[in-house]
Amino acid sequence: MSERIASAELRAKLMSADEAAQFVNNGDLVGMSGFTGAAYPKALPTAIANKAKEAHAKGDAFTIDMLTGASTAPDCDGVLAEAEAVNYRMPYQSDPIMRKAINAGSMKYQDIHLSHSGLQVEQGFFGEMDVAIVEVTRITEEGHLIPSSGVGNNLEYLAAAKKIIIEVNEWQALELEGMADIWSVPHLPNRTPIPINNVGDRIGNPYIQIDTNKVVAVVETNAPDRNAPFKPFDDVSAKIAGNFLDFLEGEVAAGRLTYDGYIMQSGVGNVPNAVMAGLLDSKFENIQAYTEVVQDGMLDLIDAGKMTVASATSFALSPEYADKMNREAATYRKSLVLRPLQISNSPEVIRRMGLIASNGMIEADIYGNINSTHVNGTRVMNGIGGSGDFTRNAFISSFISPSVAKDGAISAVVPFASHIDHTEHDAMVVITEYGFADLRGLAPRDRVAKMVSVAHPDYRALLEEYYDRALKSTTSFQQTPHDLKTAFNFHLNMIEKGSMKG
Amino acid sequence: MSERIASAELRAKLMSADEAAQFVNNGDLVGMSGFTGAAYPKALPTAIANKAKEAHAKGDAFTIDMLTGASTAPDCDGVLAEAEAVNYRMPYQSDPIMRKAINAGSMKYQDIHLSHSGLQVEQGFFGEMDVAIVEVTRITEEGHLIPSSGVGNNLEYLAAAKKIIIEVNEWQALELEGMADIWSVPHLPNRTPIPINNVGDRIGNPYIQIDTNKVVAVVETNAPDRNAPFKPFDDVSAKIAGNFLDFLEGEVAAGRLTYDGYIMQSGVGNVPNAVMAGLLDSKFENIQAYTEVVQDGMLDLIDAGKMTVASATSFALSPEYADKMNREAATYRKSLVLRPLQISNSPEVIRRMGLIASNGMIEADIYGNINSTHVNGTRVMNGIGGSGDFTRNAFISSFISPSVAKDGAISAVVPFASHIDHTEHDAMVVITEYGFADLRGLAPRDRVAKMVSVAHPDYRALLEEYYDRALKSTTSFQQTPHDLKTAFNFHLNMIEKGSMKG
Repeated sequence: MSERIASAELRAKLMSADEAAQFVNNGDLVGMSGFTGAAYPKALPTAIANKAKEAHAKGDAFTIDMLTGASTAPDCDGVLAEAEAVNYRMPYQSDPIMRKAINAGSMKYQDIHLSHSGLQVEQGFFGEMDVAIVEVTRITEEGHLIPSSGVGNNLEYLAAAKKIIIEVNEWQALELEGMADIWSVPHLPNRTPIPINNVGDRIGNPYIQIDTNKVVAVVETNAPDRNAPFKPFDDVSAKIAGNFLDFLEGEVAAGRLTYDGYIMQSGVGNVPNAVMAGLLDSKFENIQAYTEVVQDGMLDLIDAGKMTVASATSFALSPEYADKMNREAATYRKSLVLRPLQISNSPEVIRRMGLIASNGMIEADIYGNINSTHVNGTRVMNGIGGSGDFTRNAFISSFISPSVAKDGAISAVVPFASHIDHTEHDAMVVITEYGFADLRGLAPRDRVAKMVSVAHPDYRALLEEYYDRALKSTTSFQQTPHDLKTAFNFHLNMIEKGSMKG
Repeated sequence: MSERIASAELRAKLMSADEAAQFVNNGDLVGMSGFTGAAYPKALPTAIANKAKEAHAKGDAFTIDMLTGASTAPDCDGVLAEAEAVNYRMPYQSDPIMRKAINAGSMKYQDIHLSHSGLQVEQGFFGEMDVAIVEVTRITEEGHLIPSSGVGNNLEYLAAAKKIIIEVNEWQALELEGMADIWSVPHLPNRTPIPINNVGDRIGNPYIQIDTNKVVAVVETNAPDRNAPFKPFDDVSAKIAGNFLDFLEGEVAAGRLTYDGYIMQSGVGNVPNAVMAGLLDSKFENIQAYTEVVQDGMLDLIDAGKMTVASATSFALSPEYADKMNREAATYRKSLVLRPLQISNSPEVIRRMGLIASNGMIEADIYGNINSTHVNGTRVMNGIGGSGDFTRNAFISSFISPSVAKDGAISAVVPFASHIDHTEHDAMVVITEYGFADLRGLAPRDRVAKMVSVAHPDYRALLEEYYDRALKSTTSFQQTPHDLKTAFNFHLNMIEKGSMKG
């Protein structure tokens, strides 16, 4: 397989993952590729985890500070967390073992807007990076890197790191070459506009240029990306998708959107995929996506001729669709552009595109503040990801969620959000299976009835009771009525009695 | 004075403010100029207020929905609120009478990011605008408008409105002409990059072009902008300014900033002016400001040769400095650029500039969530203004505040912010008279000690007690430890006992 390493200089650095792990030391700041289960290094994490375990067995300290594009997979975040090999982690994760370590307080996790993560490394907030470990599809004769199934923060990490380890993954289709569009925003103080005017504009090269002198190891792998399959759509997801389409139709009726002018941004998950399935049968045509990840539903839309182009930084495909991608990459690359995270999630380009953002949430309060990250205000689930990048700069920003979780024990609409990731200034529309709450143009008090209308019927009276109490508790000072004594009663009920209903 | 109205077509529409008020009707959506006490219409608000009072005396309904650039003054927001003439208000206000009406629930107020406010009108979220009322310095022969002391959302309102009323204010110096740089971001779906690469770049015209057919009235005025004088610096402000400079020096020492590379954004107020006074005696040279408003301290920096250029959308000057500006506008216009709010506060340009943002706050919590707007979570003070536009896109974002207010009864550091306008993902540095808390690169638990260190000594033990309780209350789930039962005890103490200390 070494035909994938066309550079003689770099072919000379071929070694095993265990040998390459010698270049990763205790206390190192390590930047890795990887974004929503795609394009993460497949071999080095296990090798590093083994090195950590050996050190720990001898009573020696061994941890790294680990930076990625976003979440990875069990054979990356999982093995490293299990080996207690990570001291600090940013900007996003979704691994069960790692999440447990984070919430137990044994691992430090900083939840950073994705568009800021590589930028903060570039700006020097993390000091020097010791090692970058990046998966690629192929190395060219000149030593350029052809990205695999995602780009993420690879440019920033490869530029910042003192040492580079490259994993060449044979499982990734060679036909991915040409999908990536690599353009680097000039560094301060010479930043210039990002010259993207349309979703599909290509402005750079299909490869990443590096300082090959920094490469200390090249490792061959042959292992699949690991993405979870999506669940079949249930009735609730279908209803939410229907309400989302009703909302879009309303925008068309109001003259703010046309049937061939919809630019989509979509968070990851079952509900977004249900929304995309709904679009297949809608009147919307020539849909475009300026988003973070390419999902199954987008490939279906492209196959059906409903979507013309999708721009993202990575794939987030089910195993079935990942295989399909590997078979048909030569076709899909005509309709897909993979960009560096700083560009896929750029506030500048997002605002320019005029997209409609839709992201999931844990809960929203009666005024439209959104909690995307923490259960009961304390336990982090995954992280904010790019939801803030898109919400803050979208033409219209929406949040979608089933109205209840855990068989009705948890309401997605609460009196006071127990953690706030998106403020009342940012969220415009909240959508559940009961409809959509359009908060645009509304003062806080006028938002309450809208938010209650999308809550589960079991919780509506409880929310109204809270609002009545809030109105009475602070009679003379109430742009935003609250009764701070009972603001978290929903959450305290959940903690103490197992249900927000009490 | 009609030489200020060079267009014969528009001179023919000269009338009194009372006559012009005929064009403003009950229920109208009215867009006005005005930004931090500058450039607001001086005559029409009183005429509209009188019309409202007359209607109310007859038992008739009369209110308008009122949109501006930001805050205005007693003879605009004040008289209209006093006459109960406003139904809905956005995006920002700071008038005591209006604030009272808002918090009493008799007026609706939507607190919108300033960079979104004109955009949302342009995007059609408010439907058709009935009237735009805009103050200018002069009308040219072609009917172009020369902005007075601010630009704000004038472009969006003049474009959206069916009718236009122009106030020509003789008090504003004719030499302001040339200070404004008017460039309109093309509307969706044709938005393009904003071609500003440097703070002082001029990309447009010194005038606003309008459809003169929409002009229904031109009114002459001669009245000053109304800005409050700043208080003399006190000891606390001086200490905060010193800590801010220490923070800047630390960035220089870390190699992230140079003495001639500081680009400032600064919120309005006494503390920011103290910071600017501190910069006069600092090692920083060739300072630039890409900010929202031009303040006294910036003129001092320009006079002293320490600041080369400031870009903003408006003035926020004390009466003394406003007079100075009127006398010396011909000189200052070489160093000042006034831009439309969509550009002064553009996420795109802000991120490109790499500026250091510093804004005031009401309170921060132990994890770095910031409350900029609501006392005790319910009573709105002013609004978020542009603080989110800058915080979210700055190179470094800081918040500055005295550690206590009301003689120590209110702490600026609390366990849980009672309203959240900027999240833990956005705030990087919090500065009080006790030092600066640098939260960059830190997981939530590691932020607590930093935040406690900048709290007033009287509150440190109380904050530590809360954190200990939080650690114990949710032992197994605590990325962000909280004890939701007592999270708002500081605020409840304030409400019930008059002091957060209890």
